[in-house]
Amino acid sequence: MKCINILLNRLKQESLDALIVSSAANISYLSGVIANDAYLLVSKKETIYFTDSRYTQEVKPKLAGKMSLKRANGSVFELIAKSCLDLELSRVGFEERSLPFAEYKKTKERLKGKAYLVPTYNLVENQRQIKNAEEISKIREALKITAQALDFIKGFIKPGVKELEIAAELERFIHYKGAQGAAFEIIVASGVNSAFAHHKPTQKRLQDGECLLIDMGVECSGYKSDLTRVFFLGKINSLSRKIYEIVLKAQEKAIKKIRPGEEISRIDALSRKYIADNGYAQFFGHSLGHGVGLEIHEAPSVSGKNDALLKAGMVFTVEPAIYLPGKFGIRIEDMILVTEKGYEVLSVAINK
Amino acid sequence: MKCINILLNRLKQESLDALIVSSAANISYLSGVIANDAYLLVSKKETIYFTDSRYTQEVKPKLAGKMSLKRANGSVFELIAKSCLDLELSRVGFEERSLPFAEYKKTKERLKGKAYLVPTYNLVENQRQIKNAEEISKIREALKITAQALDFIKGFIKPGVKELEIAAELERFIHYKGAQGAAFEIIVASGVNSAFAHHKPTQKRLQDGECLLIDMGVECSGYKSDLTRVFFLGKINSLSRKIYEIVLKAQEKAIKKIRPGEEISRIDALSRKYIADNGYAQFFGHSLGHGVGLEIHEAPSVSGKNDALLKAGMVFTVEPAIYLPGKFGIRIEDMILVTEKGYEVLSVAINK
Repeated sequence: MKCINILLNRLKQESLDALIVSSAANISYLSGVIANDAYLLVSKKETIYFTDSRYTQEVKPKLAGKMSLKRANGSVFELIAKSCLDLELSRVGFEERSLPFAEYKKTKERLKGKAYLVPTYNLVENQRQIKNAEEISKIREALKITAQALDFIKGFIKPGVKELEIAAELERFIHYKGAQGAAFEIIVASGVNSAFAHHKPTQKRLQDGECLLIDMGVECSGYKSDLTRVFFLGKINSLSRKIYEIVLKAQEKAIKKIRPGEEISRIDALSRKYIADNGYAQFFGHSLGHGVGLEIHEAPSVSGKNDALLKAGMVFTVEPAIYLPGKFGIRIEDMILVTEKGYEVLSVAINK
Repeated sequence: MKCINILLNRLKQESLDALIVSSAANISYLSGVIANDAYLLVSKKETIYFTDSRYTQEVKPKLAGKMSLKRANGSVFELIAKSCLDLELSRVGFEERSLPFAEYKKTKERLKGKAYLVPTYNLVENQRQIKNAEEISKIREALKITAQALDFIKGFIKPGVKELEIAAELERFIHYKGAQGAAFEIIVASGVNSAFAHHKPTQKRLQDGECLLIDMGVECSGYKSDLTRVFFLGKINSLSRKIYEIVLKAQEKAIKKIRPGEEISRIDALSRKYIADNGYAQFFGHSLGHGVGLEIHEAPSVSGKNDALLKAGMVFTVEPAIYLPGKFGIRIEDMILVTEKGYEVLSVAINK
């Protein structure tokens, strides 16, 4: 219930009587129950979890504290609006990033002008940036299985094997280790395919002399990991080696400056400048990293546009890359926890 | 380009100059490229695909016909709005079900009152209900692999095996068969867990005398399958057999009435009435089925609330169920194609 209390204080600051939570990750975070087709109404008087017949049996016994459950038979927006009116709420926040326009419209109509919908931006997402000990331990568990999976897969990496087969073995392995599943569709990109940042595994067979990029994550108790490693089949050619070393050094430059109070945009700039100084600026288009937790991409965005400062408890990726179209791409990605004094590489067990 | 032309005609009927497409499945459908973090602007003058640096290299060579590609470096909404103004569009539709309120707001602001955003509902989704031959062939391919997977998994179903291990073997198998992956998180629910309609696989071990419900789908070239079968470990007890037969008969009652012109709500009612007549009405809470294609749940919804008529080319599931809390649940799900004269069970190869 601590999460809810922090949110209630925040709502008070915003002069809001309540918040309609529509983001599944935010609902999971606040309720302690992994959410599917659910909504949450958080107010000082009552917190209500709305779902339908498919989930009520499963959700009810898991709901934390004084939370109540309402089952929608017809329109869930009708039920949410009715609850707002029953609780005599006046200013009701909603999450403008996750609520589709149609759902906003339906809820607004059903409030009949007796309560007002107020857009809010990232209220719960910002709160979720700072992970508590329990959350960090779930992320560690996800990373532990990721490390085991990458270690296991080394035995499969040889010429003739298909990208999809590598993905198949990884998915199977993580399930056997007790993970809920992959945190996202595993990227297995060999040779020229590695130049595509978000390649999907294909029937392409690995060849001698190629690189193999694996970007994967695991979900444990709702929390995710995200990690990229590049392997080489046979002898590494000199260009690949050079690029690999630039990317690795770029990553190191950023990581070692991580500490509370540092500007997030500067962390991005440190890697980016090193890559630019080596003449590859135009081959690194995406931002340096992103927060990871209940969602695979969450706050903070580790980019040149984020003018916030690092805080202890943040968990994010640092993943500089160089993509050479038609040739290959190298990305190296680790997950970092900001500690009181500096940083901890959560994925330190996984060799680069 | 045929899809685009049908949509352009529809826009004309709605007096719209263009449509901003934000649903990933709709973008895939219209552009022929599986979409990630993309938007499409469809207008008579030009159709533009918007994405960012991560995807441009991959998308560009695949774009159909006269479609152009714009890469967003900063705000994609700025770029979309600028394109609307450059094309001198006035009434611009947007998809109210998939566009979050925040994105609507950002786009609206950037149009500076020179073009107007008009909410639209299911324009492309309704068009997608009728599958063409190419789409049906992709769905058949996904179902073929699903059938092979269920056949393969029979060898693994025995007491002591964990639900997660069954999921692991299924995921591995479908990748080896060339599927992109599972169409959704595979449901493997044994014994009491099968009473939860959307159970996630756990470390629970299968036991003799239990039932095992597997609900799975496969993705091939973006198109999905969805199928549920229930297996029994050892001897089937009489209650399980009775419930299984009621559900199977309820499914048959609905399927055999499928033909163009029939009311969709009546199809739902046929299964539901049979279950109710047998005294289990309150144990079948969800609707009878849903369309399947680029999305795992799409139009038409096969429910009592859908007052539309069946049309040739629709593909949907028929999945009656009875869930007995604390005991077990039985759901039987097949995929049906509405043909000119009646129906075809696309999943006929998979024994019930």
